[in-house]
Amino acid sequence: MKILAELKKKKPLVHHITNQVTIGDCANIALAVGALPVMSHSIDEVEDMVSLASALVLNIGTLTKEQVDAMLKAGKKANELNIPIVLDPVGAGATKYRTEKTLELIREVKPAIIKGNQGEITIIAGENAEVKGVESVGEYKDIMKTAERLAKETGAVVVVSGVEDIVTDGKETYVISNGDEKMGIVVGTGCMLGSVLGSFVGAGKQILDSAVEAVGFYGIAGEEAAKLDENAGPQKFKVEFMDQIYKLTPESLQGKMKVKKA
Amino acid sequence: MKILAELKKKKPLVHHITNQVTIGDCANIALAVGALPVMSHSIDEVEDMVSLASALVLNIGTLTKEQVDAMLKAGKKANELNIPIVLDPVGAGATKYRTEKTLELIREVKPAIIKGNQGEITIIAGENAEVKGVESVGEYKDIMKTAERLAKETGAVVVVSGVEDIVTDGKETYVISNGDEKMGIVVGTGCMLGSVLGSFVGAGKQILDSAVEAVGFYGIAGEEAAKLDENAGPQKFKVEFMDQIYKLTPESLQGKMKVKKA
Amino acid sequence: MKILAELKKKKPLVHHITNQVTIGDCANIALAVGALPVMSHSIDEVEDMVSLASALVLNIGTLTKEQVDAMLKAGKKANELNIPIVLDPVGAGATKYRTEKTLELIREVKPAIIKGNQGEITIIAGENAEVKGVESVGEYKDIMKTAERLAKETGAVVVVSGVEDIVTDGKETYVISNGDEKMGIVVGTGCMLGSVLGSFVGAGKQILDSAVEAVGFYGIAGEEAAKLDENAGPQKFKVEFMDQIYKLTPESLQGKMKVKKA
Repeated sequence: MKILAELKKKKPLVHHITNQVTIGDCANIALAVGALPVMSHSIDEVEDMVSLASALVLNIGTLTKEQVDAMLKAGKKANELNIPIVLDPVGAGATKYRTEKTLELIREVKPAIIKGNQGEITIIAGENAEVKGVESVGEYKDIMKTAERLAKETGAVVVVSGVEDIVTDGKETYVISNGDEKMGIVVGTGCMLGSVLGSFVGAGKQILDSAVEAVGFYGIAGEEAAKLDENAGPQKFKVEFMDQIYKLTPESLQGKMKVKKA
Repeated sequence: MKILAELKKKKPLVHHITNQVTIGDCANIALAVGALPVMSHSIDEVEDMVSLASALVLNIGTLTKEQVDAMLKAGKKANELNIPIVLDPVGAGATKYRTEKTLELIREVKPAIIKGNQGEITIIAGENAEVKGVESVGEYKDIMKTAERLAKETGAVVVVSGVEDIVTDGKETYVISNGDEKMGIVVGTGCMLGSVLGSFVGAGKQILDSAVEAVGFYGIAGEEAAKLDENAGPQKFKVEFMDQIYKLTPESLQGKMKVKKA
Repeated sequence: MKILAELKKKKPLVHHITNQVTIGDCANIALAVGALPVMSHSIDEVEDMVSLASALVLNIGTLTKEQVDAMLKAGKKANELNIPIVLDPVGAGATKYRTEKTLELIREVKPAIIKGNQGEITIIAGENAEVKGVESVGEYKDIMKTAERLAKETGAVVVVSGVEDIVTDGKETYVISNGDEKMGIVVGTGCMLGSVLGSFVGAGKQILDSAVEAVGFYGIAGEEAAKLDENAGPQKFKVEFMDQIYKLTPESLQGKMKVKKA
């Protein structure tokens, strides 16, 4: 957990342009892990704001035309300044608009990381998938190959969240099996992973390493939180989970990461 | 609690166009009860999104011109596809704008359920009421008749929240006396009831039955949460309450509903 | 704690035009302390809404052009009706846009209270400061003089949050040393202080006295919450903190306020 240690030391500023549903959770999780979150979506300031940042998180969960315009502007500036971008295409595939805007963002802006569930990643890769609202439905047997292909085509590290998470840059692929099923009954665990990825990538120099460590760290926090109270409902679990993100240290994480190279 | 059982089985997609204050709470409560929430308010995608949904929740808590336009578009599509709409006219009566837009929504879109506090329902029915911000002020002795009249005129089931909740389709009227006063010290219990109504009506075939069951279920969750820790402040109560929404089952609810026909 | 007693009796309506990140927290804290919060930012209704209110809170945390327009409109109406305004210039100094819009708000609208961290207040006073996202960075040795000067120039009571909080009207200056460092690991404690200031000033007649009491009260709630569980992470602390805001009474606060005249 070398990058977590760097993150806590560097306190990277992570600029978010994100959805209204989990915007507060994303700010809190980024602060908890040791970053400084800032949320800003006005076209009149996103270039200035991202210029101060160590990473940019773009999440289309409640996208509008104005927000996508701000994303494009901030994203281009980030590319220019070599600031890594995490793209979370929430609900891509559910509506034509989300799919199109996601593809436009990938075309116009070069993300360092694309993170989605199996349905979203499959859709973005140009294959058929079923996305019900913002939820992935169905089985995707070839998801690893799909993710690798998308990584190669876009130059981004692709993170596929699921029971087992996949992280690939198209050449090396890792499967991470940390996490707890309770993470699925809380709204925003996907979005918050985007913020944690942004925080790690804002501290680490290596995108792939940062992504692997962030995903493992995130899953371990879920496991530790689940252990504390097995009868906890979603909201109690959420409090414990977010607090584990704050409490876990590089030392306490030692040996808990379940990652294997595919 | 037949409809709750169906809901947990069906996992209806519930499309929300709602306010910025409680949007996260509404998504969490809908997920907790067993639905799949999706929040989307862009005019460019609401028709596509609602077409996938089993119910549409329209909540004007922080309405803007753009949001009302999206509500009208989504609402008309929902009507066309026979997807039930829950309308929550938060703060109608507080400003002329909220009252006018609520009446426009009722005129242009046919809601299956209109849910409000006593002040909001009275205003919508065209009578005098005092709404302070988003809070009902004053006494409404004839609220049952007012609700019945509004139901008849609009064809909607009308739900009036209060110490005793009223549910009526203008012909049959039920009074439900579940609930706990602590629900009044948490922001968003009104909005979250809207999401639970959307979840039930997205699963049940009968609007009136679905609404009665949803309101009783919601109040029981409040009672059960209040029992767990009588010294709990609003936020601790909120966690317990939302977790009861997740934990209660059709079986555990047996015999707890306090409903009588008026 | 005379004003807290008045506040709980009066239940002042506090109109907020605020950011998307902490809007729910702000509403909950205002309700907890005894006010009635209402959040509304549509240009079509802000004048009507603020006319019903006892105070107006303007927070630029996620400002947009439309939101600033609504703030100007609501602010001018509030001035006209003698309704006190609390201005929270979140992130002023981080981008040129935030600094300019803050100065425009102060020029066009007369706030009763300007509340910010050391960096924000220093920037608004026309001096150099470093604001990283929404966080104050660096040391400000002359902050007290800066605050006093800003108070004199604007006619507002200036509140500077920090390890020690400063409250000044330019003539009398108070230093308040209540609070707990855990308040810094939760997103929104700054914004929520703005809502508490709005609630107090909506009840008290004297702006300076209301601000001093609000700041002391807020810090005591942090201290009491921190005592309850020293191992609490940020989210657990947040629940306890917000619940202390609800539970503390004028009586239980007796003798806990650490305020001295500078």
